[in-house]
Amino acid sequence: MRLTNYFLPISKEVPTDAQIVSHQLMLRSGMIKQSASGIYSWLPLGLKVLQRVEKVVHEEQQKAGHLPMLMPTIQPAELWRESGRYEDYGKEMLRITDRHEREMLYGPTNEELITDIFRSFIKSYKELPKTLYHIQWKFRDEVRPRFGIMRGREFLMKDGYSFDIDRPMAINAYNRHLVSYLKTYERLGLQAIPMRADTGPIGGDYSHEFLVLAKTGESKVFYDGASQHIKLGNEYVDYEDVGGLQRTVDRFTENYARTEETHDLSLFNQLPEERQVEARGIEVGQIFYFGTKYSEAMDATVTLADGSKKLVEMGSHGIGVSRLVGALIEAHHDEDGIVWPKAVTPFHVAIVNLKQGDTEIDKVCEQIYTGITAAGLDPLYDDREERAGAKFATMDLIGIPLRVTVGPRGIREGMIEVRCRSTRTVKELPINSVVDYCIEEFRGFE
Amino acid sequence: MRLTNYFLPISKEVPTDAQIVSHQLMLRSGMIKQSASGIYSWLPLGLKVLQRVEKVVHEEQQKAGHLPMLMPTIQPAELWRESGRYEDYGKEMLRITDRHEREMLYGPTNEELITDIFRSFIKSYKELPKTLYHIQWKFRDEVRPRFGIMRGREFLMKDGYSFDIDRPMAINAYNRHLVSYLKTYERLGLQAIPMRADTGPIGGDYSHEFLVLAKTGESKVFYDGASQHIKLGNEYVDYEDVGGLQRTVDRFTENYARTEETHDLSLFNQLPEERQVEARGIEVGQIFYFGTKYSEAMDATVTLADGSKKLVEMGSHGIGVSRLVGALIEAHHDEDGIVWPKAVTPFHVAIVNLKQGDTEIDKVCEQIYTGITAAGLDPLYDDREERAGAKFATMDLIGIPLRVTVGPRGIREGMIEVRCRSTRTVKELPINSVVDYCIEEFRGFE
Repeated sequence: MRLTNYFLPISKEVPTDAQIVSHQLMLRSGMIKQSASGIYSWLPLGLKVLQRVEKVVHEEQQKAGHLPMLMPTIQPAELWRESGRYEDYGKEMLRITDRHEREMLYGPTNEELITDIFRSFIKSYKELPKTLYHIQWKFRDEVRPRFGIMRGREFLMKDGYSFDIDRPMAINAYNRHLVSYLKTYERLGLQAIPMRADTGPIGGDYSHEFLVLAKTGESKVFYDGASQHIKLGNEYVDYEDVGGLQRTVDRFTENYARTEETHDLSLFNQLPEERQVEARGIEVGQIFYFGTKYSEAMDATVTLADGSKKLVEMGSHGIGVSRLVGALIEAHHDEDGIVWPKAVTPFHVAIVNLKQGDTEIDKVCEQIYTGITAAGLDPLYDDREERAGAKFATMDLIGIPLRVTVGPRGIREGMIEVRCRSTRTVKELPINSVVDYCIEEFRGFE
Repeated sequence: MRLTNYFLPISKEVPTDAQIVSHQLMLRSGMIKQSASGIYSWLPLGLKVLQRVEKVVHEEQQKAGHLPMLMPTIQPAELWRESGRYEDYGKEMLRITDRHEREMLYGPTNEELITDIFRSFIKSYKELPKTLYHIQWKFRDEVRPRFGIMRGREFLMKDGYSFDIDRPMAINAYNRHLVSYLKTYERLGLQAIPMRADTGPIGGDYSHEFLVLAKTGESKVFYDGASQHIKLGNEYVDYEDVGGLQRTVDRFTENYARTEETHDLSLFNQLPEERQVEARGIEVGQIFYFGTKYSEAMDATVTLADGSKKLVEMGSHGIGVSRLVGALIEAHHDEDGIVWPKAVTPFHVAIVNLKQGDTEIDKVCEQIYTGITAAGLDPLYDDREERAGAKFATMDLIGIPLRVTVGPRGIREGMIEVRCRSTRTVKELPINSVVDYCIEEFRGFE
């Protein structure tokens, strides 16, 4: 993309109404614009990041064998009456009356709708297990929306629903979700610690939240410092291996790690003092096993081999997709702006032309631009007539991992400067090897 | 995907409440399920097609230089009061009151919201031209939703908005849209004829609708039979070439082609009688040039080189993304079910195992499955223990372009049957060449 063709309304001023750094940086870098309280438009740069996060979430869910589908945003109230949640949910539910005076709502979550789909089609135990998920916009009418898209009203969420024949299989589905979530966060460049959590309005008796540590996090968390060093890394996950999955889950959940809601001081105090960590975190996902809470209320059963009927065991599992964009910025920024991890960066390489209009320099910029594009990477070429300082500041603010600077001195010497945004280290490379260097840097992160 | 792991709730019965064939086939093939009047869930098979259509729409818009972004579904009423449309829009607009008694609405279209974004950030003529678009769910509270997703209430639409400095540039943006839409429809396997149209509640004085001819179409259309033979084919479109684009537009719009609303009998009768065609069509897109209608109401101006201010010239341009799925089925089906064009098929190759559990046959099926997957294509493997007839009927119903049948006779003779869904022709191929044949058939349609 050439910057002169793009729509990137950056701003130098720190918006006064944005309290946390991700909100400030998303506004300043032209990623989002508020259209109403807690409701945002995603401008081109923001949408690119959102889509990359969404793609990783899709891929990891499908690796775990979960099936993508798409439920609508508007739901009929009658389904929520069956589960009893229509009255329970309170003012966070956006209630709507259509032209025929039918009661509808903008879905804050989808347990009722998916259970209705399940009971309409799945009749036999042979069709289990099944996990269906979707990535769809949700609405929660927060009383005080804040922190930009981190606690907005309209937000993008991945929510998945597992259907199993009995408790052990349902726990296995829970484990698949726990591990696939860890994989997802790690791929995005985030470390999220699973913490034992309250179940809230979803219900059930078994739940973990995933918390990304960040000073600006809204949740207080307490954990065993040893948790911070547990990673999946490049470990291959075999989602068919029930025992292996359980061992992975145990490894990630055996240490004390809880949010304020479930914190148990006496347990916490049993840890060696140097491992008692109190910190703040951002919730980026939550998984629940709740057994037959919804299948009982909505009569979702399967027929067993002996002809008898059994209520299906369910769980529901969510990742805050739009919220992850904010969490990524909270975890990856410095005083100059965002520092995107390679897996989610909106552009791979920033090309800065220091003397726009100079035939030789323009030509080299075009060569690099074409080479990077041909390799399937996405360059952002600053082809404006602007001062070098302004060009550098823009690329630093929007956080592109590599910056290639083409100017008169470099051209004279046949060398090009390539700078890494995160380490701020600079390399001088021969003109002809710049494209290959960039390709190599992004291998595995296309 | 293995069918035993998939969620494909097909049905043999023709649903009595579905009046048109696309609605019937989408229900029967387990693509959608109604969750409320005019509101549908997209089951896994349906979502795959929807996503493929969406991807083609995205790609062709970006080739034309249009920038993707994403506006929210819920909009504040105040913006619609500025344009005067809040009162005008009537009962088709889903009006919502939030917990703080603020008036909101579920966007049926986005002229107001995008104009607000434009005026907030774009101040200079130098930043023009710009076209921003998004693919987002819309809601129109139809009084009588019908025809499944073809005339539903919640639907997925691509809507793009062009901003230009003057009328000639705005006409050029209109032309870019007209041609990129034609490209989109052709790539999807549809012929859509641009027809001069009324502007309706969007406003403006220049508009074309795109109609796919289909006996079940809801619109009556009148056109010069010569229009049917005009195609872009593999013609390269240079979107920078203003004159070339105009000539392409003229070629596609010079013949008489109108919908009932704009039909002019005296003009129509001037055509040679054998070229006077009356037919039915499905509207799959519409483009509008409306000048300063919204920029004037909402004060969206740019500063010119001489310091004076000028209202920006606008157009808006829509493609019915979810509706296209229905239109594709109306145009491509036979008595056995759907016949997907290669560009949008949810799976590329159907693999039918005629004797599940037979070691040799299972092995060959797995080989073919692995080979096709490794080539980046998506096979659907019917690994159920089912009669051959039921397996064939399922694959015919859901319309997979190629079917590979592996059974005892074939294995004995070392030959595999490959059948084309659309022509129903059958080829016998040596086992080892089946995968390559499939890859070759989908070259350019991955």
